[in-house]
Amino acid sequence: MKPYAEMTKEELESELNELKESYKKYLGMDLSLDMSRGKPCREQLDLSMGMMDALNSTVDLSCEDGTDCRNYGLLTGIPEAKVLIGDMMENHPDNIIIYGNSSLNVMYDTVARAMTHGIMGHTPWCKLDEVKFLCPVPGYDRHFAITEYFGIKMIPVATDENGPDMDKVEELVSSDESIKGIWCVPKYANPTGVSYSDETVSRMARLKPAAADFRIFWDNAYGVHHLYDDKQDYIVEILAECKKAGNPDLVYKFASTSKITFPGSGIAAIATSLNNLEDITAQLKNQTIGHDKVNQLRHVRFFGDIHGMVEHMRKHADIIRPKFEAVEEIFEKNLTGYGIGEWTKPNGGYFISFDSLEGCAKEIVRLAKKAGVTMTGAGATWPYGKDPKDSNIRVAPTYPPIEDLKLAAELFCLCVKIASVKKLLENK
Amino acid sequence: MKPYAEMTKEELESELNELKESYKKYLGMDLSLDMSRGKPCREQLDLSMGMMDALNSTVDLSCEDGTDCRNYGLLTGIPEAKVLIGDMMENHPDNIIIYGNSSLNVMYDTVARAMTHGIMGHTPWCKLDEVKFLCPVPGYDRHFAITEYFGIKMIPVATDENGPDMDKVEELVSSDESIKGIWCVPKYANPTGVSYSDETVSRMARLKPAAADFRIFWDNAYGVHHLYDDKQDYIVEILAECKKAGNPDLVYKFASTSKITFPGSGIAAIATSLNNLEDITAQLKNQTIGHDKVNQLRHVRFFGDIHGMVEHMRKHADIIRPKFEAVEEIFEKNLTGYGIGEWTKPNGGYFISFDSLEGCAKEIVRLAKKAGVTMTGAGATWPYGKDPKDSNIRVAPTYPPIEDLKLAAELFCLCVKIASVKKLLENK
Repeated sequence: MKPYAEMTKEELESELNELKESYKKYLGMDLSLDMSRGKPCREQLDLSMGMMDALNSTVDLSCEDGTDCRNYGLLTGIPEAKVLIGDMMENHPDNIIIYGNSSLNVMYDTVARAMTHGIMGHTPWCKLDEVKFLCPVPGYDRHFAITEYFGIKMIPVATDENGPDMDKVEELVSSDESIKGIWCVPKYANPTGVSYSDETVSRMARLKPAAADFRIFWDNAYGVHHLYDDKQDYIVEILAECKKAGNPDLVYKFASTSKITFPGSGIAAIATSLNNLEDITAQLKNQTIGHDKVNQLRHVRFFGDIHGMVEHMRKHADIIRPKFEAVEEIFEKNLTGYGIGEWTKPNGGYFISFDSLEGCAKEIVRLAKKAGVTMTGAGATWPYGKDPKDSNIRVAPTYPPIEDLKLAAELFCLCVKIASVKKLLENK
Repeated sequence: MKPYAEMTKEELESELNELKESYKKYLGMDLSLDMSRGKPCREQLDLSMGMMDALNSTVDLSCEDGTDCRNYGLLTGIPEAKVLIGDMMENHPDNIIIYGNSSLNVMYDTVARAMTHGIMGHTPWCKLDEVKFLCPVPGYDRHFAITEYFGIKMIPVATDENGPDMDKVEELVSSDESIKGIWCVPKYANPTGVSYSDETVSRMARLKPAAADFRIFWDNAYGVHHLYDDKQDYIVEILAECKKAGNPDLVYKFASTSKITFPGSGIAAIATSLNNLEDITAQLKNQTIGHDKVNQLRHVRFFGDIHGMVEHMRKHADIIRPKFEAVEEIFEKNLTGYGIGEWTKPNGGYFISFDSLEGCAKEIVRLAKKAGVTMTGAGATWPYGKDPKDSNIRVAPTYPPIEDLKLAAELFCLCVKIASVKKLLENK
């Protein structure tokens, strides 16, 4: 085949006619497929049904320290959950608070607390004229939604295969006191699947922020979410690295079991320095008497320990790996050589990131939607939903059954082609 | 016996010597009893163990509308949980959002949202010079902790057997625009056990606040927590009353199952007008993808419907009623006629409220603590922990086993007597 960019106007028009014929067939199929969100599929959820038997009316619901998990108490979590989640997050149990079911909620609370009360004695952000966050792009729309909701100005920072552009991050963070945070998904990132290089993590830990209350919001959502046994990404543990760098309080690290057991019925956690924990606990004790300890116990009894969780994640991988591979194969078969798009091939996480020709992403998503396939909205991976190049699309392959997924991926490629040809024709 | 106030100095000194002898016996008993918090006892928790069997690995975890409760979705709760909790709260399911495990957290969030974003388009409270809340006293310390944490100025308002002093509430609310809220526990109040009279609720609903963003924080924590079948308090439903009064958006109503199933592993909810719900949901969608739907389903499957819950609450009553009665009996036996204290005899809820002679509460709690019985800190029932008369003590009879409770109540009476005699001697 010939790259579209090298085609004449006539060749493109002829190609477009053929593509439109193929597209019509999809229109007639009455599809209704959802590739928009990083949702586990039914088979993945079934993996955790055993957790529903981990507790029953005959078992003792006391945790290791003797606390009756059914009653009030243990604001920061039960000891054995701190061990399990600590092992998962690669942090000491003492550095951990176990929360409720949503790490997003923990991140929201962390920003909200900084807004109203400031961080470790510093001015509450709501009293400042301007607060800014760095947002590596493409990134996670729900992160951006939190900062947008609080009126925090978001500054996009480019990313590559090593993570965010650290020259830019260092320059901005060290020169602008109104920059208070950076959103990071350091491993199998949403949506690129990229894991930060050792150098990136090292430079993150060694930032010299102009703002004493600058924090890295380190959302390690996919820490144990490998797709392969033999191709796994490793990232340097950020708390230890920050400590080593003399910046022990620089980072808030977040994680949850939402994509390990059940989204919405998992347990979430923060890992951070003892200073930060003290600051957080001063709020937490006013906010709640405690989180759901029975669910913490349920998780611990189900997994036993981190080894049980690792085994469990292998089963997840076995279910979703073929889906990632199917999409990648279809992209390769349909799009290679046309010069109209690039995509990532992650070793883990929940997404493939697709970059189209400039100015095509919205049209691709529109065409797919019209034919019954819902993608994440174009632009969603950028702050304020505004992708300046209109080129990035997040592809979420986990939820649909594989046959549906293949159909959706084929259709997607067709939409990429149609949108690309139309875009190229504009300049002929 | 003779009222202490009528005793001579010599009589009081002789009485004090006798009392101290009795107190010494308690010191030798090495007690360690906790009457400080409204915690259910083990037998109460056992009532809900069946809930641990309500779900297991063989049952379908879809809710009525077909949503798989294990996955993301349904931000405001599953339909059948809204029906169950709606019935419990006496509100329409459409007026309800089901949250996570803690109604305190919902109240905290409600204040936090008003601080950072304001209520229904009004100025965020954090941008105002001063924000005030009315605090009916004695009241719930954790309410006061939330408003104190946010720097909201708290104004105590006296209560009697009908609820808050409504003349005062009306006067303050209608004249001061910086008064943005009032904390209410309208039924079996914490700590008095009082339920608001029809007139009180009616006047609450008809408040004419100077502030358009004034809200009643109606914490109906003990709505179904009766102690007796034949002596139950009823209160007028506040949402309906507000609507009738042309003030539909005036109230946020809170409740949870914390003292119905398991504290910390229950489900919490807010009931309010559709306008308020829209305002809340605009935040909620940024805060979380959803709460724990599996736990919502677990509750619904366990209770079936509101009748199941009512039956369940009868069993709670059977366990804790004898504890309330034992304390009341011991108070009556030991304290009647001395003129050194008054206490409430609630028909439901979790507390007995005790009022000592002025200036005695701290000393009573200190003496009890020294002998191994932990009471709620004196002053806790007042904003900033400052009871101007130093006389109110919250008594929480539910948690200790009944024999321990009786011992603790006897000791408490002794401490009341000692502190009272000492106080009276100061003026002789």
